[in-house]
Amino acid sequence: MAIPSTSCPEYRVPLRDIRFVLREGLGIDEHYLHIGAEDATPDMVDAIIDEGAKFCERVVAPLFQAGDAGCTFEDGRVITPPGFKQAYEQFVEAGWPALAGPVEYGGQGFPGSLGAVMTEMMCSANQAWFEYPGLCEGAIKTLERFGNDEQKGTYLPPLIRGEWLGTMCLTEPHCGTDLGQLKTRAEPKDNDEYELSGTKIFITSGEHDFTDNIVHIVLARLPDAPEGSRGISLFVVPKLLPDGNLNSVHCGSIEHKMGLRGSATALLNFSRARGSMIGMPNEGLKCMFTFMNYARATVACQGIGAAERSFQGALSYARERLSMRSLSGSIAPDKPADPIIVHPDVRRMLLSQKAVAEGGRFFFYYLYKQLDLANHSRSQQEREAADSLLSLLTPIAKALMTELGCEAAYYGVQVFGGHGYIVENGMEQIVRDIRISTIWEGTTGVQSLDLLGRKIARSGGELLRVFTSIIHQFCAANHDQTDMQPFTGVLVTLLEEWHEVTTTICERATIDKEEIGAASVDYLMYSGYITLAFFWAHMARVALDRLGTSATEKSFYQAKLETARFYFERMLPRTESHKRAMLSGPGNLMNLDQAHFAF
Amino acid sequence: MAIPSTSCPEYRVPLRDIRFVLREGLGIDEHYLHIGAEDATPDMVDAIIDEGAKFCERVVAPLFQAGDAGCTFEDGRVITPPGFKQAYEQFVEAGWPALAGPVEYGGQGFPGSLGAVMTEMMCSANQAWFEYPGLCEGAIKTLERFGNDEQKGTYLPPLIRGEWLGTMCLTEPHCGTDLGQLKTRAEPKDNDEYELSGTKIFITSGEHDFTDNIVHIVLARLPDAPEGSRGISLFVVPKLLPDGNLNSVHCGSIEHKMGLRGSATALLNFSRARGSMIGMPNEGLKCMFTFMNYARATVACQGIGAAERSFQGALSYARERLSMRSLSGSIAPDKPADPIIVHPDVRRMLLSQKAVAEGGRFFFYYLYKQLDLANHSRSQQEREAADSLLSLLTPIAKALMTELGCEAAYYGVQVFGGHGYIVENGMEQIVRDIRISTIWEGTTGVQSLDLLGRKIARSGGELLRVFTSIIHQFCAANHDQTDMQPFTGVLVTLLEEWHEVTTTICERATIDKEEIGAASVDYLMYSGYITLAFFWAHMARVALDRLGTSATEKSFYQAKLETARFYFERMLPRTESHKRAMLSGPGNLMNLDQAHFAF
Repeated sequence: MAIPSTSCPEYRVPLRDIRFVLREGLGIDEHYLHIGAEDATPDMVDAIIDEGAKFCERVVAPLFQAGDAGCTFEDGRVITPPGFKQAYEQFVEAGWPALAGPVEYGGQGFPGSLGAVMTEMMCSANQAWFEYPGLCEGAIKTLERFGNDEQKGTYLPPLIRGEWLGTMCLTEPHCGTDLGQLKTRAEPKDNDEYELSGTKIFITSGEHDFTDNIVHIVLARLPDAPEGSRGISLFVVPKLLPDGNLNSVHCGSIEHKMGLRGSATALLNFSRARGSMIGMPNEGLKCMFTFMNYARATVACQGIGAAERSFQGALSYARERLSMRSLSGSIAPDKPADPIIVHPDVRRMLLSQKAVAEGGRFFFYYLYKQLDLANHSRSQQEREAADSLLSLLTPIAKALMTELGCEAAYYGVQVFGGHGYIVENGMEQIVRDIRISTIWEGTTGVQSLDLLGRKIARSGGELLRVFTSIIHQFCAANHDQTDMQPFTGVLVTLLEEWHEVTTTICERATIDKEEIGAASVDYLMYSGYITLAFFWAHMARVALDRLGTSATEKSFYQAKLETARFYFERMLPRTESHKRAMLSGPGNLMNLDQAHFAF
Repeated sequence: MAIPSTSCPEYRVPLRDIRFVLREGLGIDEHYLHIGAEDATPDMVDAIIDEGAKFCERVVAPLFQAGDAGCTFEDGRVITPPGFKQAYEQFVEAGWPALAGPVEYGGQGFPGSLGAVMTEMMCSANQAWFEYPGLCEGAIKTLERFGNDEQKGTYLPPLIRGEWLGTMCLTEPHCGTDLGQLKTRAEPKDNDEYELSGTKIFITSGEHDFTDNIVHIVLARLPDAPEGSRGISLFVVPKLLPDGNLNSVHCGSIEHKMGLRGSATALLNFSRARGSMIGMPNEGLKCMFTFMNYARATVACQGIGAAERSFQGALSYARERLSMRSLSGSIAPDKPADPIIVHPDVRRMLLSQKAVAEGGRFFFYYLYKQLDLANHSRSQQEREAADSLLSLLTPIAKALMTELGCEAAYYGVQVFGGHGYIVENGMEQIVRDIRISTIWEGTTGVQSLDLLGRKIARSGGELLRVFTSIIHQFCAANHDQTDMQPFTGVLVTLLEEWHEVTTTICERATIDKEEIGAASVDYLMYSGYITLAFFWAHMARVALDRLGTSATEKSFYQAKLETARFYFERMLPRTESHKRAMLSGPGNLMNLDQAHFAF
């Protein structure tokens, strides 16, 4: 039968582009010297990226479709999809879990931004598989920052070796975002021990067969805790007790999900499970939120990974699939039709994916450079500036890149036409896998309230000025170059507008309490498109410089410039619709009585 | 365990709104008198809608989730999901297949627009199930219009009784949209018979257990046919031959799909299968395209159904789920938190769904009213005017309402938060089910080329003027009413702009052959949002009138007005982004060499 081969396109790590962003875009080698990461020499960075790429392409990516069959749940145990556990064993043997871990507990101590490269490659290769080591990051960072010496000594070395894995246990059946409602209780016992009882849901990697022990970081209430979010403390509760016996944490079920089925999402019952407190009583949420910037940057990366994988699939299909003729002259007159990449609208979809993947990549590593600086710069001023940028940009990155990741994956299916709807071709799985990303670690709505309410309005716009002054400097420095004016001209106008709409909304918010909420998501998307425009302008600048000097890679830099142009002319105009919507005020949302939404 | 009940929200037919559109919006009772459909009295129309609603709510909708388990394929036979066949038997017993069928072949002869009500209710209740009777419509319409007396006599009565079902066999493995490439051959035999050989894919309802016989309408080439799309003829090929023996049409497999799994999508092998020709040799595509307006309107309805079902689910969840407090004062101080419908951004998503479902509903029945007129008006001028409107509006409805249906379903998952990602809650299934709608019966890209290239540019803009003059008349007639000015004022401005951008693009297209393709999808979406704005303004007008006279339903009409306002202030501004993108020209799409998309 003349059926086209139905199989998922292979994933190839976009090494050239990752190096472009890190080296040419962000000057990562100088940056590593600056923060005192002497071991991260250019050669070492190259070797790590190359080895990581091989591992992701050869071991992780081929399990992408197998993972979709999902995990099996039997008698409280979770069996991960075929090949998942073996891939994790190879991951551990190669020492990957320790890459960016602290040296004093067995880590290799490389900068977070280098670990982020591995995150990007794993997210693109197989997000479901990535969730097992990925979620462990949160547990490690929490223990490293807030654990006492005993907790660190007990948990960090095996976690950093990858011998154990970790989870974050926040949500409960009746409360998602609103953690103030949580009910799990922690009863103090002797020897600084606590017994935790309650039910946690949606626990990613809450149970699995990768490691014997699983270290749960759990939010719970002390008996005398105040109500709401001020009465929440943080605990570490291992699956296996130090004596080797099972703790009483039981997996009640795993969820049937739209996607990411290879990642086990567990319901965990804690019934007098033994653990110890992390940090101070009732300060659990504060502890959780300190590593939120990492967690949210990682979720942004999921959007980028989905865009990259979907782009690669759609591109290879668009080059092979023959349908209709180019309107400006056939490019394959010897064939029954032209490849569909000749059609403008197919290109519009491919370029949208490319602009999202590459622009998002720059955004992601820009964030991680700030995280490096916030943690390791020797200058307090620099640490504070990085912290300010992270406060502003993290909710933007998380919400924007996940929404755009969903859009890019949507185009991947569309480019494939009917074949995109067929499971075997893998494009629809990307749509399903990425769909959770706009929800977990704070929905798009929650990120937007964080941005506009907590960050922008509360700082009186100061946080915004920190970032826009950087963009202004960039524009001023480049405005005399004719080729840059299409970018800098638009940016300067938008920066002014951005401040104007911010002022308008913040002023109105003093009168109407719903103003911020009504404007928030449109405001975030508006801000996000401008932010991404800055990064695209930055990349265009580098490409223009290199075009003048590099003889061998002209087409790479030319493509960068064309994609920047596409972004500015076809995606950035969305700011206009978001601006109008956000300025339309709360009336069109709040006036309708909730009883009258339907009849 | 304190898990919230995880089950799919029930579907309720929005009877009040359907009646609002048909009666108050489109004056359907007068329209039926006008086209001579005397049997469709107001009482009869009511009775049919009420009975149809009961059937859809009680029989079809409850099978929505069961259908997701998919069909089983064994030895060339397809077993549909549990309950599907029984529901179809009830459908046939109640006489529904005959509702809008021609009286001379056993149909009840009701107008197409009344059949469309049933289509809407079935699409919303369970699109996968609907595909079995839904696809049969195409077969019936083709035979009715182009079949000879023998074909009509043989096939129409059992199809109209629902005893047999039908399919449309177009696509082949190597060609989707580009039917000119198809290879299935038809060899003439004695007695006007042909033997067909070839492979057809993506045949919805190509094999199933609902009926013994399946009537395939098949595109194929005669031995001496010219190449390309001018050499395609149309055939009818039954699964069971008149003598009761099996014809040689074999189902080779069914597809594993992202969604709509209860609908069997078959690969059919024709190996010297016996059939007869419909219409004239080499005029197959022309025959197929005459009923395209119906098929595409039906797909538009799938988008509306998805929006409606997703809206109902999200609304009931948003009224029950407690999270955080309203910023302008708690509405449920006795509860641990407020229902999430108090939050502006949740309302933004719900109102988007509502605006899509209700605006789309008006659009759909407006189209069907034109279809009624095009077929049954006694005035030639009226028939031609209706045909013009259908030419223009059908591709807009198909592409716009399926894209917006996908968006509405996306919001349904988002309102549910993490629970939206869980299969049992049903919201993610709507996303998966509706995803095919922007692809089949012509992708969004194909609709857009049809609109801008074939319809607008080729008519020199005349088709557009037919429609915009209707909107102009509406605006002129209502502009003196203060309450209507926010709607009519915006519309008048947009009409002018619509003509301007159309002229600009058509002029540029004479110079650059890629102009149309590069502008097409943005142009369609732009046109679509204005079209929907007209329908929302129309509904606002009706609501304002009724608010003045109706004492009992003030809140229904007030909600209509508020939703119109939401649409104008929050969705319609998207025209601005689409305008800028479409006017940016083909350069940003076409300049990048196809070899340089990735490195």
